[in-house]
Amino acid sequence: MTKPKLRIGLIGTGFMGKTHVFGFASAPRVFELPYEIELHSVADITPEAAARAARTLGFAHSTTDWREIVHHPEIDMVDITAPNALHKEMALAAIAAGKHVYCEKPLAPLAADAREMADAAEARGVKTQVGFNYLCNPMLGLAREMIEAGELGEIRGYRGLHAEDYMADADGVHTFRHDPAGGGALADIGSHALATAEYLCGPISRVMGDCVTMIADRPDGRGGRKAVTVDDIGRAFLRFENGATGSIEGNWIATGRKMQHDFEIYGTKGSLAFSQEHFNVLHYFNGADARGRQGFRRIEAGPDHAPYGLFCVAAGHQLGFNDLKAIEVAGYLNAIAGIAPEPFNFRKGLRIQTLVETIHRSSQEERWLDVPA
Amino acid sequence: MTKPKLRIGLIGTGFMGKTHVFGFASAPRVFELPYEIELHSVADITPEAAARAARTLGFAHSTTDWREIVHHPEIDMVDITAPNALHKEMALAAIAAGKHVYCEKPLAPLAADAREMADAAEARGVKTQVGFNYLCNPMLGLAREMIEAGELGEIRGYRGLHAEDYMADADGVHTFRHDPAGGGALADIGSHALATAEYLCGPISRVMGDCVTMIADRPDGRGGRKAVTVDDIGRAFLRFENGATGSIEGNWIATGRKMQHDFEIYGTKGSLAFSQEHFNVLHYFNGADARGRQGFRRIEAGPDHAPYGLFCVAAGHQLGFNDLKAIEVAGYLNAIAGIAPEPFNFRKGLRIQTLVETIHRSSQEERWLDVPA
Amino acid sequence: MTKPKLRIGLIGTGFMGKTHVFGFASAPRVFELPYEIELHSVADITPEAAARAARTLGFAHSTTDWREIVHHPEIDMVDITAPNALHKEMALAAIAAGKHVYCEKPLAPLAADAREMADAAEARGVKTQVGFNYLCNPMLGLAREMIEAGELGEIRGYRGLHAEDYMADADGVHTFRHDPAGGGALADIGSHALATAEYLCGPISRVMGDCVTMIADRPDGRGGRKAVTVDDIGRAFLRFENGATGSIEGNWIATGRKMQHDFEIYGTKGSLAFSQEHFNVLHYFNGADARGRQGFRRIEAGPDHAPYGLFCVAAGHQLGFNDLKAIEVAGYLNAIAGIAPEPFNFRKGLRIQTLVETIHRSSQEERWLDVPA
Amino acid sequence: MTKPKLRIGLIGTGFMGKTHVFGFASAPRVFELPYEIELHSVADITPEAAARAARTLGFAHSTTDWREIVHHPEIDMVDITAPNALHKEMALAAIAAGKHVYCEKPLAPLAADAREMADAAEARGVKTQVGFNYLCNPMLGLAREMIEAGELGEIRGYRGLHAEDYMADADGVHTFRHDPAGGGALADIGSHALATAEYLCGPISRVMGDCVTMIADRPDGRGGRKAVTVDDIGRAFLRFENGATGSIEGNWIATGRKMQHDFEIYGTKGSLAFSQEHFNVLHYFNGADARGRQGFRRIEAGPDHAPYGLFCVAAGHQLGFNDLKAIEVAGYLNAIAGIAPEPFNFRKGLRIQTLVETIHRSSQEERWLDVPA
Repeated sequence: MTKPKLRIGLIGTGFMGKTHVFGFASAPRVFELPYEIELHSVADITPEAAARAARTLGFAHSTTDWREIVHHPEIDMVDITAPNALHKEMALAAIAAGKHVYCEKPLAPLAADAREMADAAEARGVKTQVGFNYLCNPMLGLAREMIEAGELGEIRGYRGLHAEDYMADADGVHTFRHDPAGGGALADIGSHALATAEYLCGPISRVMGDCVTMIADRPDGRGGRKAVTVDDIGRAFLRFENGATGSIEGNWIATGRKMQHDFEIYGTKGSLAFSQEHFNVLHYFNGADARGRQGFRRIEAGPDHAPYGLFCVAAGHQLGFNDLKAIEVAGYLNAIAGIAPEPFNFRKGLRIQTLVETIHRSSQEERWLDVPA
Repeated sequence: MTKPKLRIGLIGTGFMGKTHVFGFASAPRVFELPYEIELHSVADITPEAAARAARTLGFAHSTTDWREIVHHPEIDMVDITAPNALHKEMALAAIAAGKHVYCEKPLAPLAADAREMADAAEARGVKTQVGFNYLCNPMLGLAREMIEAGELGEIRGYRGLHAEDYMADADGVHTFRHDPAGGGALADIGSHALATAEYLCGPISRVMGDCVTMIADRPDGRGGRKAVTVDDIGRAFLRFENGATGSIEGNWIATGRKMQHDFEIYGTKGSLAFSQEHFNVLHYFNGADARGRQGFRRIEAGPDHAPYGLFCVAAGHQLGFNDLKAIEVAGYLNAIAGIAPEPFNFRKGLRIQTLVETIHRSSQEERWLDVPA
Repeated sequence: MTKPKLRIGLIGTGFMGKTHVFGFASAPRVFELPYEIELHSVADITPEAAARAARTLGFAHSTTDWREIVHHPEIDMVDITAPNALHKEMALAAIAAGKHVYCEKPLAPLAADAREMADAAEARGVKTQVGFNYLCNPMLGLAREMIEAGELGEIRGYRGLHAEDYMADADGVHTFRHDPAGGGALADIGSHALATAEYLCGPISRVMGDCVTMIADRPDGRGGRKAVTVDDIGRAFLRFENGATGSIEGNWIATGRKMQHDFEIYGTKGSLAFSQEHFNVLHYFNGADARGRQGFRRIEAGPDHAPYGLFCVAAGHQLGFNDLKAIEVAGYLNAIAGIAPEPFNFRKGLRIQTLVETIHRSSQEERWLDVPA
Repeated sequence: MTKPKLRIGLIGTGFMGKTHVFGFASAPRVFELPYEIELHSVADITPEAAARAARTLGFAHSTTDWREIVHHPEIDMVDITAPNALHKEMALAAIAAGKHVYCEKPLAPLAADAREMADAAEARGVKTQVGFNYLCNPMLGLAREMIEAGELGEIRGYRGLHAEDYMADADGVHTFRHDPAGGGALADIGSHALATAEYLCGPISRVMGDCVTMIADRPDGRGGRKAVTVDDIGRAFLRFENGATGSIEGNWIATGRKMQHDFEIYGTKGSLAFSQEHFNVLHYFNGADARGRQGFRRIEAGPDHAPYGLFCVAAGHQLGFNDLKAIEVAGYLNAIAGIAPEPFNFRKGLRIQTLVETIHRSSQEERWLDVPA
């Protein structure tokens, strides 16, 4: 019995495009997928670049016109890894053409745009996905499972973080990421901290933001300097619907930090601590352990933490970043097949943008704000 | 040539009193002090308790009346480790009697009281000290030295923390620490995070507080429950005078945490990370290290980090909590002798109370507040 | 310009077979390979299993007869992941048929057999590879590069380890791994510690072994128990040709350990420490760092550590176990194309078996032995 | 009711002498001791040095003749921290005079001398102590308690280590520590690894040594170089009477290491891992923890781990190196009073020397040796 094919058209061949292809390549070898993946077409700026991408990445066809992909009758799913500013136009066109749409984060620089995209997808009945891959980590799944099962008791305190240093150099050139329409540390990586916070603790109901620009201007690439109007550090106090309180920080000038996507979560019965710097490990404190024998346990990812066992035969081998992408792909294909709900669809992508915008606005207005539904 | 004597009268013989005596006992064996310390008198509630304390701790005399100590003509320095609510009366009496006064933290539950104490001490010309012992750690000294020398460049971001779990049990009895007049996690341990932040980065100019009560009531010890009106978690966004921004959290319901007095500080050239859970270590990222060889260094306390070398012959041996108290005592004695400035006098104790109160008020009013001078 | 094809026949579809296929799938998307990989045929025990493996893993054909693969004229490379005892017969047949041969470790249970295989491959002029994938870690490459460049100075001391707990349960059934002809902790995982030791420090010239059986017998699967005659812990003192001295331990009953493949290497100028439990990190002590600022640096894998940058866009993202396999595959294909030397050919596989056997014999004879060339 | 006095005479005022005095000063404030300690006399080379030591350290009298101390009728216990080569003569004289004797490690460079000292002490009926202070760590006490209670099950594997870098510089001057009569890394610090091994796992019955000199000669202090005949690294395989097997290493040229006194101990039910680099922590793996929730626990020293609670009010505060000395002093005083057995008497000091010598001999003869009783 052969599986139906799912034909993919990829727009954008930069690093994230390549990472998606890693996911398409390994997912079928790891998971029992509902479809046979076919890498149909890829679009890039020039014919040469597109042809090379097709050859390297394994697509059958190439084009310089992303609209060809969107409208190609054989293509089932459009995968968008083009610059953020183009996400909306491409996605809406693909949705209109009845394609399933997989879009890198952020879904769109503005929540209003993201909402339009989510509405369109739901109206048209296509399945969507935004690439919040850190959430695909089995250890985050374990954390959520433990929280939902009550192993930590009632959650009281949360601390989330996503800090890197890729913008720490004040002489780094001004780019689209420094653009006020959607850029900044909070939007770019603080969004991951927010996604993880809601993934673990449920909806955030209220925020108080503190977004600061520490590097006032950057080289404009033409010998001058251009003012930076986005945040280099975005902090927020949080209220969760479940009664917990917490904070997050997104920081792209944290000199020396490469992947400090961390969280600590404190409950009445136990606690968890995690760092993406070592993402195959979850630290767990169990308040029920015997006196004098208590301490944070260093749980290493293993076959007990699905779907780790599909990748590696035993604990300690460790998943890598690209493996998380394979898990993301598998989840999306199951959703397309109707086997499982969409893991992180455009509606959820919109949610993150809404949180980011509310925190920005709270920071500007210097007051607590309710997060719109 | 014999040294002059410094005769000490101790009020309060609980754990902190004992810890102070550890400091008095070891400081002269570690440091070349300007005085010979004499443990003159100790006060406790009953004659038996006072006599036992005198014997165990090594004081020559005992009394049940703290005023005897304050007024005893032979006593040079009064050391107050009695309950917080009594600090003010005792300290003012001692100052009026011309004694130097060493007082455990917090100096007083209310900043107004702390100000009265600081003013009185300065007017009378006595030397004072508040017990912020974490600041006596040679690795914090190293951190400050590196910052002042510009080794981190310009400071941009600060994250401070003091989390423990000693109040995590909702069935723990209501105590004076749950009293609105000065109690709560922010005042009790968040104050340490604030002291460290200013020690390293200089004055905090503006704050936005978020103080929350997670355990609504606690057993009153008589079969009922009593409402808790203090914060279990106190958070704040910070602005420093030097332009840096940051945050701190004080949390006494962080299940599993025993001493998470941590900070991370990010500059343009380098960064530091520290945890009191392993306080003989400072992590240092130097942006000038060669490419491909960069990473946070785990610096272990050693003789290069004064005054470590007076305690241990080589790196790796490690100081303990009580050693920090000996350093604190030595610093105070040098100040009394006029050799060095007061390391952490009543004026600085007042400063911490002012920060705590401003954060509390900011949280209640839900707006940013300038920190009064 | 199209690339020549390299057609692969896989024998064995267990976990390691699957892992190899992960490598074949991702290598072309990561590296600019000299060949286009074609998954030609796969062999398994039953027609159903073989057909399912072909479908899941992406092979065009399937068979129940491994000899068909070995003799198929279209197949260029035979990949052997069948049980250890079959490696020799399969490899010799494939070599005789002029195929390149990729064989999982251990190459053969006995060094004499491994030697026959290595000799045959060299005589026939085919390219071979044994799967010592830990060596493909960019951080091990970095370590070797630093050592070769003299960054550590002269090497004096080495400590290697590979400890896990998969045989810690005394009620685990007796298997082929408990067979005296090649089994045991030293052969199974101590071999990794030996491979890493020689990879970093060069040839081991002399050994003193200490191989012990701690679990005397195991269930025979038929209600009785069967004596275990292999080592549960295999230790050795080492002399290296370069003058360094050291030790290794292989241990499969180290309760709680999942992947303690660690090493520490001490030179006159600096040192390295590594644990496979966190294999994207290398700890480096540089004796030339300024006084009071020295400490082991936690170097995180990043684009400065080739070929990491081909997998992930920035430091901190982390490679996984299966990525190491892609690196291994790429190295082998380059060797087949004559672009680079064989990274770890049968001759090197033999070398490891020789070391294992010499340590076994040394342990039995309770004396130091020279390692045969 | 006043306590009897115990009058102490100290010979040697170097760092270890000072450390002992720290212990004498703090022990009575921490523990309920059977004696009141009186610092009676101290001996040093010159009258000035002796007088200064008396003043700084708090002794009533000083002398330049250690024999005065040994024979002084008022002195009850003689504390020897003079150079190793003098231990024997001083101790035998003190024993002959009926004094209790406290001696820094090593008890004597040669086991034969140590035996004479132990025999003499027992014959004369005085109480003795050798300063193996790492064993006084509450976390080592916890480890032993867990092992004795069977919490780890049957012990199978042990790995011990004591590595530092204080002799890593080949241009460090030749000293008495490089003298063949008792010097070398194994004797100097490997002895600590041996003491810990027997403290935790019981008697070692058989050893195979590997002692190597990596720095052939050192400056003689007069412009030339002098051959080094002691080991820079001393390794040993171990057999324990209880059936466990293991290894230790003593290494004083481990560049970058300051206090790598580590052990790992693997049992059938659980495991422990420890590093003196962070000696207030013990890592514990409990095989009975639920599946998917297992991992090494980071147990922080606290009041549950006696006598920690006498020093610090709560977990996380941490003991320092000098606190271990206070514990050592308290244990010895209880032994003198007949309340408890001698924690580490001359007989045990002899035992360590016997182990060291047997390992040295084993290394020279290149064969396994039984450890004499």
